[in-house]
Amino acid sequence: MNRSTLVKEIKKKESYLCVGLDTDINKIPSHLKGSPDPIFEFNKYIIEATIDLAVAYKPNIAFYECYGTSGWESLQRTIEWMPKDVFTIADAKRGDIGNTASMYAQAFFQTLQFDSVTVAPYMGEDSVTPFLQFKDKWAIVLGLTSNSGSKDFQQLSLSDSTFLYEEVLKKVAQWGNEENTMFVIGATKAEAFKHIRTIVPKHFLLVPGVGAQGGSLEEVSKYGLNEEVGLLVNASRSILYADSTQDFAKAARREAQAIQQEMATYLQRSLLISE
Amino acid sequence: MNRSTLVKEIKKKESYLCVGLDTDINKIPSHLKGSPDPIFEFNKYIIEATIDLAVAYKPNIAFYECYGTSGWESLQRTIEWMPKDVFTIADAKRGDIGNTASMYAQAFFQTLQFDSVTVAPYMGEDSVTPFLQFKDKWAIVLGLTSNSGSKDFQQLSLSDSTFLYEEVLKKVAQWGNEENTMFVIGATKAEAFKHIRTIVPKHFLLVPGVGAQGGSLEEVSKYGLNEEVGLLVNASRSILYADSTQDFAKAARREAQAIQQEMATYLQRSLLISE
Repeated sequence: MNRSTLVKEIKKKESYLCVGLDTDINKIPSHLKGSPDPIFEFNKYIIEATIDLAVAYKPNIAFYECYGTSGWESLQRTIEWMPKDVFTIADAKRGDIGNTASMYAQAFFQTLQFDSVTVAPYMGEDSVTPFLQFKDKWAIVLGLTSNSGSKDFQQLSLSDSTFLYEEVLKKVAQWGNEENTMFVIGATKAEAFKHIRTIVPKHFLLVPGVGAQGGSLEEVSKYGLNEEVGLLVNASRSILYADSTQDFAKAARREAQAIQQEMATYLQRSLLISE
Repeated sequence: MNRSTLVKEIKKKESYLCVGLDTDINKIPSHLKGSPDPIFEFNKYIIEATIDLAVAYKPNIAFYECYGTSGWESLQRTIEWMPKDVFTIADAKRGDIGNTASMYAQAFFQTLQFDSVTVAPYMGEDSVTPFLQFKDKWAIVLGLTSNSGSKDFQQLSLSDSTFLYEEVLKKVAQWGNEENTMFVIGATKAEAFKHIRTIVPKHFLLVPGVGAQGGSLEEVSKYGLNEEVGLLVNASRSILYADSTQDFAKAARREAQAIQQEMATYLQRSLLISE
């Protein structure tokens, strides 16, 4: 999916919500556990219940990979079943060089047909550019994350007094462009968004950490929205596990709707949609 | 596999060779391509031909993942078939936080029963420590790699004049210990090994980049070997694709043997084995 289609979908649905499919077999309602592929079954219900409220879905690949081949089958079924008008993100945080990076790109862009994959920057340019060679596909590169460990390296000061994550944003933005590159920016650093927008004013930012992880959607939206929206905000657990009974899908929809309605307000405030 | 067993195996085989199973369907001999699982079939021949010469095998996960479910089946067959007295490395370069990192650890340590997995450090402590909670399992964390992109971030100077990769080595060494943590150090930076050994004198280092990638085994061994060996040196393409005919396994063995014999010399020089 290209940028203009993504922006159009956001404006149509009045939502920049991404639903994270961190589907944990131990947390899904017990009545689904007897089905042949409970993870896929759960995903299907969640997607159906939220499809008019979310513009993106983001399977967390670890949750599938941990079951080996059968987990990859659940992932493959989920992505094949996914409606075509949503933006799909493989949250895989892959990072390797040259030919190996191309193989990962092939895995997610061709074999599984995701629109995008999250990428770790530590190995530098030749670990990022192989993901930028596919038409209408995206690398979503780790910038500043919201976990406690982000201080260990991302927030180290370099000799020119900038932080490492700033250097990552600057360099990666040069390797690609705003049509094939996004950045992961954690929501609990809302005060950092204003600054980040001076470095990457035009790029889309994927923001995890709203909802169960405690980030403020209002703050993120205030500083993060740009003239072409430029934000995808992810919620996972707060939607997926809103309820553990047969009503889980309805509860998921209610959670997603509350977020979508809040987002519609912020899109109106920023004059990105009319009231 | 724990450290003392690994060291014992190295001394027994007089080898610290790791064979990288970067198995590319386009490069394997054509007579294997008709078999039900050519990638697994090729791996079996390679392992059989080198088992007395190599102490470790390292499937490059991208080469399996790019085929989705069927690739994971080849990987699973390979690891299940692997002799128990070799050290196995999932070259996956995973890096995510908390619960997600635990899921990746489960994927490689429990579902697939690898001894170790390569890990990317960008997200910090809570992305590394989940891999250190498994008995006799290892996190092999990216330190300094040998690709051109290593200059983009790894070799940036911090405000205290150290390089980022030095800070990574120091911090990660504190999170774990030399019984559960190794580092990836690229071979084309042989002159850096002396310095790296002042930061992590006791840790095992996994060294890719010897062979087709051009690093010098002699230099790496001179500066990298420590009193408990402390090195695993990987070769992939130079062994796997030494010959593309029916004789590929014999040719692979010849290549591996040349490296093993060179290694035996360096082990003798360092008085780690007797002449």
